[in-house]
Amino acid sequence: MRKPLILITNDDGVNAAGISALTNAMARIGDVVVVAPDRPRSGKSSAITPDKPIRLSLRKEYENVKIYACSGTPTDCVKMSINQILDRRPDLLVSGINHGPNTAISVIYSGTMGAALEGCINDIPSIGFSLCHYECDSDFEQAATFAESMARKVLENGLPKGVCLNANIPGRLPKGVRLCHQTDGKWVEEFIKRTDPAEHDYYWLSGHYENNEPENEHSDEWAVANNYIAVVPCKIDFTDYDFLNNYKKMNYDF
Amino acid sequence: MRKPLILITNDDGVNAAGISALTNAMARIGDVVVVAPDRPRSGKSSAITPDKPIRLSLRKEYENVKIYACSGTPTDCVKMSINQILDRRPDLLVSGINHGPNTAISVIYSGTMGAALEGCINDIPSIGFSLCHYECDSDFEQAATFAESMARKVLENGLPKGVCLNANIPGRLPKGVRLCHQTDGKWVEEFIKRTDPAEHDYYWLSGHYENNEPENEHSDEWAVANNYIAVVPCKIDFTDYDFLNNYKKMNYDF
Repeated sequence: MRKPLILITNDDGVNAAGISALTNAMARIGDVVVVAPDRPRSGKSSAITPDKPIRLSLRKEYENVKIYACSGTPTDCVKMSINQILDRRPDLLVSGINHGPNTAISVIYSGTMGAALEGCINDIPSIGFSLCHYECDSDFEQAATFAESMARKVLENGLPKGVCLNANIPGRLPKGVRLCHQTDGKWVEEFIKRTDPAEHDYYWLSGHYENNEPENEHSDEWAVANNYIAVVPCKIDFTDYDFLNNYKKMNYDF
Repeated sequence: MRKPLILITNDDGVNAAGISALTNAMARIGDVVVVAPDRPRSGKSSAITPDKPIRLSLRKEYENVKIYACSGTPTDCVKMSINQILDRRPDLLVSGINHGPNTAISVIYSGTMGAALEGCINDIPSIGFSLCHYECDSDFEQAATFAESMARKVLENGLPKGVCLNANIPGRLPKGVRLCHQTDGKWVEEFIKRTDPAEHDYYWLSGHYENNEPENEHSDEWAVANNYIAVVPCKIDFTDYDFLNNYKKMNYDF
């Protein structure tokens, strides 16, 4: 039987520790093709690059693993893989392991999840993995072990059309896995304002996350805060069907 | 009574014709602050700029209108407005008028809609407007007239928490407005491969849209193809609650 083909990408870049751990884990399951940004591309969401040429280079090839670097965004990497690199449809796409959480509304800014959503758009079962740990010496091995187990289950069962998974893994040994919803809350931005030598102002994006439901045991923030792996099923259809079904009653007749 | 405060942004940049038409229309309703990218930023999705300093400059000020240019993405523009520019919460955010459609899955790549989603995250009633017309001489006036009418309705009624609107306006005189769902389909990418003088390859993102439900009268693609204004209510909560409620039955117990 042919081994499954697994496409790997991330937003921390091809040289990140997280993608290396994920690559080793996936190479135990199938044939692996890594197509990842040539530099860190955090916060790129589902951005694409229509206005600049994209470069691609084969960086490494060994056993059942091929590693490419791409000058585009994580989403570009997925598009490029499907269209220019792979000779068959991948059986699975995994993105990450991101260095830092992509819980709650961060899913919308995340390049890691942008890539997973792109896989999903292309009907490839897709999972984004993030490690909820910020230190330079983060250990991705435990997260990679979980990723391997989850990848095997998704390869076995598939995923429904239009749904991908967002897995956030706590930094400490997790107590288990919880299926969760995306926590309600937002980033409260506090830009840091500075002045350059020419006396022009510039700003650094900063801020902290404000959780509107810290006690909700079904939210992904609660799960990781309580040392569980949080898995949120994410849709690529943004439509609010409740609104759609009720708008006439709601006086929204445009 | 104090006039409503309307925040305007886009992804085609502060000098685009679409934002100028939208600004004129909104200035008939309230006090207007425009904070838009200093250059075209199409396809930026909900990307943010955590890794570079952001610049901001006041470009123009007249009557009830102030116009700023920002070096960041559309999402950065919204964050910057709320945190550094506005002295009160805007009553409405409008984004656009985008030059070209943001129907179907394009919503996920669109900077116009990234900005509207960001407004929604910050509990500001938000609408993205796109004109389904590609020519250089596109006339945004008719779309701006519709935007004005829709803005007045949303100012009057508000929008439910967590929902913003994606309005796509056909290039010809529309027959009416249809509330729609996001069309199921995807972009089939065909990268154009070229070789530079140093004999290295590079790629341009290209492609065409493949519609999985061309006959569905409730889809936004059908609406604009049939000369209706398509309005899709979009959620910032990506969670698939159907999956969440049924995953145990579906053998997805991770």
